Amino acid sequence: MAESDFADELAEMGRRAKAASRELYNMPGVQKNRCLEAIAAEITADQDNILAANEKDMEAARERGLNSAVLDRLSLTEKRLQKMTKGLRTLVGLQEPVGREDATWLRPNGLKIRRVRVPIGVIAIIYEARPNVTADAAGLCLKSGNAVFLRGGSESINSNKAIVDAMRRGGEKAGLPEGAVQLMPWTEREAVNELLQMDDKIDLVIPRGGEGLIRTVVQKSTIPVIKHYKGVCHVYVHEDADQDMALKIIENAKCQRPGVCNAAETVLIHSDIAETFAPRMAASLEEKGVRLKGDEAFCKMVPSAESASDEDWRTEFLDLILNVGVVDSAEQAIEHITEYGSEHSDSIVTSSKKAANYFTENLDSAAVYVNASTRFTDGGEFGMGAEIGVSTDHIHARGPMAIDELTIYKYVVNGQGQIRE
Amino acid sequence: MAESDFADELAEMGRRAKAASRELYNMPGVQKNRCLEAIAAEITADQDNILAANEKDMEAARERGLNSAVLDRLSLTEKRLQKMTKGLRTLVGLQEPVGREDATWLRPNGLKIRRVRVPIGVIAIIYEARPNVTADAAGLCLKSGNAVFLRGGSESINSNKAIVDAMRRGGEKAGLPEGAVQLMPWTEREAVNELLQMDDKIDLVIPRGGEGLIRTVVQKSTIPVIKHYKGVCHVYVHEDADQDMALKIIENAKCQRPGVCNAAETVLIHSDIAETFAPRMAASLEEKGVRLKGDEAFCKMVPSAESASDEDWRTEFLDLILNVGVVDSAEQAIEHITEYGSEHSDSIVTSSKKAANYFTENLDSAAVYVNASTRFTDGGEFGMGAEIGVSTDHIHARGPMAIDELTIYKYVVNGQGQIRE
Repeated sequence: MAESDFADELAEMGRRAKAASRELYNMPGVQKNRCLEAIAAEITADQDNILAANEKDMEAARERGLNSAVLDRLSLTEKRLQKMTKGLRTLVGLQEPVGREDATWLRPNGLKIRRVRVPIGVIAIIYEARPNVTADAAGLCLKSGNAVFLRGGSESINSNKAIVDAMRRGGEKAGLPEGAVQLMPWTEREAVNELLQMDDKIDLVIPRGGEGLIRTVVQKSTIPVIKHYKGVCHVYVHEDADQDMALKIIENAKCQRPGVCNAAETVLIHSDIAETFAPRMAASLEEKGVRLKGDEAFCKMVPSAESASDEDWRTEFLDLILNVGVVDSAEQAIEHITEYGSEHSDSIVTSSKKAANYFTENLDSAAVYVNASTRFTDGGEFGMGAEIGVSTDHIHARGPMAIDELTIYKYVVNGQGQIRE
Repeated sequence: MAESDFADELAEMGRRAKAASRELYNMPGVQKNRCLEAIAAEITADQDNILAANEKDMEAARERGLNSAVLDRLSLTEKRLQKMTKGLRTLVGLQEPVGREDATWLRPNGLKIRRVRVPIGVIAIIYEARPNVTADAAGLCLKSGNAVFLRGGSESINSNKAIVDAMRRGGEKAGLPEGAVQLMPWTEREAVNELLQMDDKIDLVIPRGGEGLIRTVVQKSTIPVIKHYKGVCHVYVHEDADQDMALKIIENAKCQRPGVCNAAETVLIHSDIAETFAPRMAASLEEKGVRLKGDEAFCKMVPSAESASDEDWRTEFLDLILNVGVVDSAEQAIEHITEYGSEHSDSIVTSSKKAANYFTENLDSAAVYVNASTRFTDGGEFGMGAEIGVSTDHIHARGPMAIDELTIYKYVVNGQGQIRE
């Protein structure tokens, strides 16, 4: 398909999305919830069809020899579809994010200024071969009154088409406008590049996936992008830490699910306790299959550890690999994290309020923890119900982005004929 | 200068800015205020030098034959310098924007989550030949704990250098870190292009100026950008409007300062009152030198008006030119504004609460007014003290951006050893 054909069809999709976003702008919460219920019901009713479409994707992926991790992410089962519809129904119970007044004030000239939450508008989600994202992301956008443009990985195109068809059929029954949920039907990269220039039709792009995908999106987009490139998360064990607690937190942060962005990649240990804590931690982690890389001090204490390169300290392993360094102070820990981290999620383990405050006040990560696992950086764990992603940007939202973060505000100003002098 | 030379020096400037932003991150409000006072004092002390530098810029601009509007914006006088230092001192009195807790909640597992305001980090301001922006923007960034990278128009390079030199000398006396306020010393475009790729050192770009400048910045930047392209603002006169009030508001919105983004470009009149109101308004505006362009209905009622083209309705005239259209309902007015406007500032004049609510609920502009001039979209007028710009984006901030909008939040999470199951 030639690029100009994408342009025409994309522009038409964009017009439909804009029109739908205007209908969603003030759609009552009860009706949005009815749409979510109807969508969930239709996905369940259409289960056989969706699973058959997914099987087509799986066959093609197996033929292409894609690895087991990709196949696992791509695969849909009856149980996974149940999880998908449960997620949509969870959204129904969440507090309506649109229409709330953030603030109201009166000016000396009598103008009354109100700041009111409104949907963002049209949101494009660009993601890899995870068909569950299709329903999750669309549901979050709908709950917050936004129209959504979905562009999933090419490996999952049949699954995504089947899911979106079901969503649209379900939504239609409850009055969801036609352009509210649209899937890009093309798998060519050029189509994404065109999409990323549609700044008159799309208000926000959220890319989800590997760092390469996200950098490409940022490079090409004239639409605002919110993203995180990677999660290089740290646990710092202060000199006065409860060492049993520290070990429990480190094991959880590294091993409970190593392939996610809020898993820890590096542990820093205060030098005063390193001699005792480092070997104990190493033994415990190695038993769990963790490969250790360390600085000079750590490698001396734990001879089985490899030497960590400068690059290692900056790497999101997404695997059972852990960097370990020895530092002389909380200040040094912050210096290291600031230099090598990704401003995602970092934790201090300490029994001192002073050290905890120093760490939380001076470290500028999206989520800074005291005596807890970094794994809690998640919309569900934060009590937001669900999340569309995590931001390490310094504007709009940091950390988990949920339905409130998918809104913005406008000012409504009431006067009695005021003019500016 | 070759591009690679920019890259090295810019990277060094970026490192200095990052280091300074870390020092500013937790700088107590009293110290930031002392810096602002010291900067204002030094600008006053250095007045002769700054005016001499400005005279150099003015001479060069006159030689190049730049028009009087540009010369006026470029020109500094003793009075303008006083306004500049008064602006800096106004910031001292504003509420400290950093460190405030937006929200706190407790999770069932005992985690205490706090959302705390923090500076954005390093902010680049790219602007045209208005030397007053140099001090205003730097002051706002400093008050909100951000380091700033300034890139002004090449015509004002000598003025900007003199102002920034004074700011840095003044700041130094009060403990301001070296890299807190930096001016790009190059006037080449390539240097800006390099700057816009420094996403590891700069957290936000705010371009201020004409639409062309801003589009270029958006196209080239891998750093998040907040901006408005233009202000095509509307006043809609509903059928039940107080017509004296409507006329007063229209005259203010169009004539009080036509060259700014919150001035009105288009008036829409309800057809029920157009026959009487249109000629009256036309007579009054034409007396003030306003050139009128209209749709067919308006041109019939006001024969002196020219016919407005499709392009006219989308144009920010920045001049005493006004489009006028006749519509049959508030709904039609919203349709017109949504199609042709820029989501900046739009006003309805009406005596009906129902029409006012309909307008404010359904129109998605950064600022929606009832019975007031669009000219109030301004940080000062909103009671924010000062503004760094106006956003028509749909993320982070809409409308006037002041010191609160130059901050973001981080999450601080306190636990007692919690791990994720």
